[in-house]
Amino acid sequence: MPFEFHTKRRIEFVDVDLAGFVHFSRFFIFMETAEHEFLRSLGTSVHTQIDGHEIGWPRLAASCEYLSPAGFEEVLDIQIVVMRKGRTSMTYDFVFRRESTLIAKGRISSICCTIDPLRGLKPMPIPDFLARKLQARPERLKKR
Amino acid sequence: MPFEFHTKRRIEFVDVDLAGFVHFSRFFIFMETAEHEFLRSLGTSVHTQIDGHEIGWPRLAASCEYLSPAGFEEVLDIQIVVMRKGRTSMTYDFVFRRESTLIAKGRISSICCTIDPLRGLKPMPIPDFLARKLQARPERLKKR
Amino acid sequence: MPFEFHTKRRIEFVDVDLAGFVHFSRFFIFMETAEHEFLRSLGTSVHTQIDGHEIGWPRLAASCEYLSPAGFEEVLDIQIVVMRKGRTSMTYDFVFRRESTLIAKGRISSICCTIDPLRGLKPMPIPDFLARKLQARPERLKKR
Amino acid sequence: MPFEFHTKRRIEFVDVDLAGFVHFSRFFIFMETAEHEFLRSLGTSVHTQIDGHEIGWPRLAASCEYLSPAGFEEVLDIQIVVMRKGRTSMTYDFVFRRESTLIAKGRISSICCTIDPLRGLKPMPIPDFLARKLQARPERLKKR
Repeated sequence: MPFEFHTKRRIEFVDVDLAGFVHFSRFFIFMETAEHEFLRSLGTSVHTQIDGHEIGWPRLAASCEYLSPAGFEEVLDIQIVVMRKGRTSMTYDFVFRRESTLIAKGRISSICCTIDPLRGLKPMPIPDFLARKLQARPERLKKR
Repeated sequence: MPFEFHTKRRIEFVDVDLAGFVHFSRFFIFMETAEHEFLRSLGTSVHTQIDGHEIGWPRLAASCEYLSPAGFEEVLDIQIVVMRKGRTSMTYDFVFRRESTLIAKGRISSICCTIDPLRGLKPMPIPDFLARKLQARPERLKKR
Repeated sequence: MPFEFHTKRRIEFVDVDLAGFVHFSRFFIFMETAEHEFLRSLGTSVHTQIDGHEIGWPRLAASCEYLSPAGFEEVLDIQIVVMRKGRTSMTYDFVFRRESTLIAKGRISSICCTIDPLRGLKPMPIPDFLARKLQARPERLKKR
Repeated sequence: MPFEFHTKRRIEFVDVDLAGFVHFSRFFIFMETAEHEFLRSLGTSVHTQIDGHEIGWPRLAASCEYLSPAGFEEVLDIQIVVMRKGRTSMTYDFVFRRESTLIAKGRISSICCTIDPLRGLKPMPIPDFLARKLQARPERLKKR
């Protein structure tokens, strides 16, 4: 069971703002896409159904620290680490690097929910098929 | 000198994701736009020049907690509060409400920089014309 | 029954690209939001249900000509005109101006559909409650 | 000298709207990114300088026809064809397919300009280093 994953992403023109650097909001999109790639690498998807109910992962919290700017056409390495696997929620940490330069560090916490068009979101335990595929990073490895 | 500002924003179709609620990344755009409206209300702009140098405000950190989902065409009230005014940096807090329902709370810290096409970003003291217009929320009012 | 509508929109930081002007893709978002404001002004919404079915308006075609650049914090006037009201489809024209300067002209054609999670999109006649509220611009007024 | 190029792109969560399909505005981003990949494949970039002037490619016109919806996590093949190479402008055509299904067809025309912070955009002949690398699709191959 993996607790981390790496992917790469090239900065697109639309990611870049007037000042010539990646807009701070785009890092949250990059984190989300990395999360989804991680789930695909495990043979599943963030967008699933269980017992006829659509499952979603609304965010509880999201944060990012920006350490160095990144520019158009640069390629970022994105590391994702499972920091916590709860009964209904997950926390992922992200580290963005351009070669050896630290660009940004982020964190996203999400809660597993059924999405009902009428009754809205209702928290549920993480489905077994997904919970079995993920583990949190062991404590002894949590320094970085 | 004001330390807070309110604005409103209607959720657009493009803000909403597959699950029918505002995508978590959009709150960072909403915060930024509220910040810029605040600066305009003070008679200035985030995009200024001083002594022939372009000034920008790259982000040091951004975070958001999501407390209740918001849907298409709903109108959010956005409160922005100056939490800290440093020599070169600013921290703003944001509260999103739909009538009496708390939707989200966010924070953004930025650093004042000159933007040089060749030498990149260089921190600088917040220009007087702007520093004079803003104050941090007094300590005695900081509970919320 | 109106066949045109005006709204205004201020250019946000996130609309602007590296070159300092509104990114060409943003005009399509501006058109869509103007369309939705028009429908709200008529007391309806683009996002409706009829007989328990969700109704959507997938796009058949979209186009834009760019005549003059627009920059950060500028306010654009957006005119929307109903060019054609068919049995199942609608065509809107858009004109973007900054005071007397023509910025862009666009067109969007959409088809009214029921959205079924299982069977996908299925074209349907424009519902009466909406069809009654809209008319196409009369031929004699079509020059511009 | 090539006159066409293929690339692939996986639909991200943020590309998809409330109805579950790629938002129509996203195809313009996909076209732009494919254009930039094409230029990189030729050893150049859309973002260049010549004689100390920054060069940009503001859009003259953009259009897209939507033929079949595309959903989250699907992979689209994007074909880009140089339809016209003028003295100062370029026109690209785009075809989006998911395996054998035609999803969309688009077109973008752009004009080569120098970008001056003070004097704005000024059209210029396409620089030789780029003009030498591109050719328009020969007439006899233009049927599709």
